[in-house]
Amino acid sequence: RRGEMAKSTQLIDNEVFRAYATYAGIVLIKMMLMSLITAYFRITRKAFVNPEDTESFGKGENAKKYLRTDPDVERARRGHLNDLENIVPFVGIGLLYALSGPELSTALLHFRIFTGARILHTFAYLIPLPQPGRGLSWAVGYSVTFSMAYRVLKTAWLL
Amino acid sequence: RRGEMAKSTQLIDNEVFRAYATYAGIVLIKMMLMSLITAYFRITRKAFVNPEDTESFGKGENAKKYLRTDPDVERARRGHLNDLENIVPFVGIGLLYALSGPELSTALLHFRIFTGARILHTFAYLIPLPQPGRGLSWAVGYSVTFSMAYRVLKTAWLL
Amino acid sequence: RRGEMAKSTQLIDNEVFRAYATYAGIVLIKMMLMSLITAYFRITRKAFVNPEDTESFGKGENAKKYLRTDPDVERARRGHLNDLENIVPFVGIGLLYALSGPELSTALLHFRIFTGARILHTFAYLIPLPQPGRGLSWAVGYSVTFSMAYRVLKTAWLL
Repeated sequence: RRGEMAKSTQLIDNEVFRAYATYAGIVLIKMMLMSLITAYFRITRKAFVNPEDTESFGKGENAKKYLRTDPDVERARRGHLNDLENIVPFVGIGLLYALSGPELSTALLHFRIFTGARILHTFAYLIPLPQPGRGLSWAVGYSVTFSMAYRVLKTAWLL
Repeated sequence: RRGEMAKSTQLIDNEVFRAYATYAGIVLIKMMLMSLITAYFRITRKAFVNPEDTESFGKGENAKKYLRTDPDVERARRGHLNDLENIVPFVGIGLLYALSGPELSTALLHFRIFTGARILHTFAYLIPLPQPGRGLSWAVGYSVTFSMAYRVLKTAWLL
Repeated sequence: RRGEMAKSTQLIDNEVFRAYATYAGIVLIKMMLMSLITAYFRITRKAFVNPEDTESFGKGENAKKYLRTDPDVERARRGHLNDLENIVPFVGIGLLYALSGPELSTALLHFRIFTGARILHTFAYLIPLPQPGRGLSWAVGYSVTFSMAYRVLKTAWLL
């Protein structure tokens, strides 16, 4: 059993895989933080969607008025959905990329640019920054994922 | 070729990885079942979003009246989206966690609590249970994923 | 260090894993293309959701009228969300399935049917094709993922 355990940890001893695990961990945590930002806006703006969430504000009409949408809540939710649409492909393709044996320096370049771009994207969305701030940060992250996908398909191609 | 094949199955022979595969499989199936629940409510409540989905109810105004939102459909959809926001990070971070060489008992504790919390969350959302039922089950799953992410970053850290 | 690097690339030398990497890459790229389709409809239909995205159309009321929903934009967005709900479980369960040591021919059958079904689903959603075109293509992809999940749980089961 010890032998097996040791074998399974070899992957995490590989430097490219360690870099992948670090950056995938960071962007997934960043994505999860969007839930807290949405919750913060829901509570401070008093804007809820589920009737059972407004019960602490009293019964009937008094509680019902907090079942509404709020621009800040909706903005945070759009940022969260955009993360799902972009960070999830990065995590999936990035894993395959890390296993395709790239140079550490090339891999780090991909991971760092993607992570930086997505953190910028979140600030650009939430502040919000004037366009093309958000658009460019989105496009950079998107392109990095495509670049990794290209290498994965070139290395693994078996249709 | 046989030798390679054997090598690739070693991962699934590792007990922590087997536990991960079991629980990741269970929560992903649970997430997929949300599609069936949404479809069930769409059909029984006759509440659709695509015009082509209402054509079996006839043509023109007769079909058009079923293009509407329904509280139960929207509730199931919110539960599904919440699963995407929480189960997807668990699956990604959990894989890296399983490869970071944790003790089997510690790993099982994480996987079991997360899976239990997310099943409770679904019931709390769909019934719905009064708060803080849904909030607490969400927070427990969220915390478990953060605990795994902490170990992944501590073990793999290479920035 | 070279030795470690070599070890980590063995996975991608395995044929089932190469097939998985190819098809997972293809469907993840397909999912990402939904962003471009949504952006295309937003720009051609002039239908935006963020005020900062309409500033190039002028200030005040002139720009505000482009903050609206458009049926084609909403359709592309629903197709994208449906991809997240179905392609993400395929990528997660498919990875575990590829590591569970299936026959190459069986694995290819699963990956090919899923990928074909999801490409059909996108066309059925965007054109749109009359039902049950979209429904059937969804059900085929869904069933393939369940079939893979069944093998993963049977092989790995450790609760």
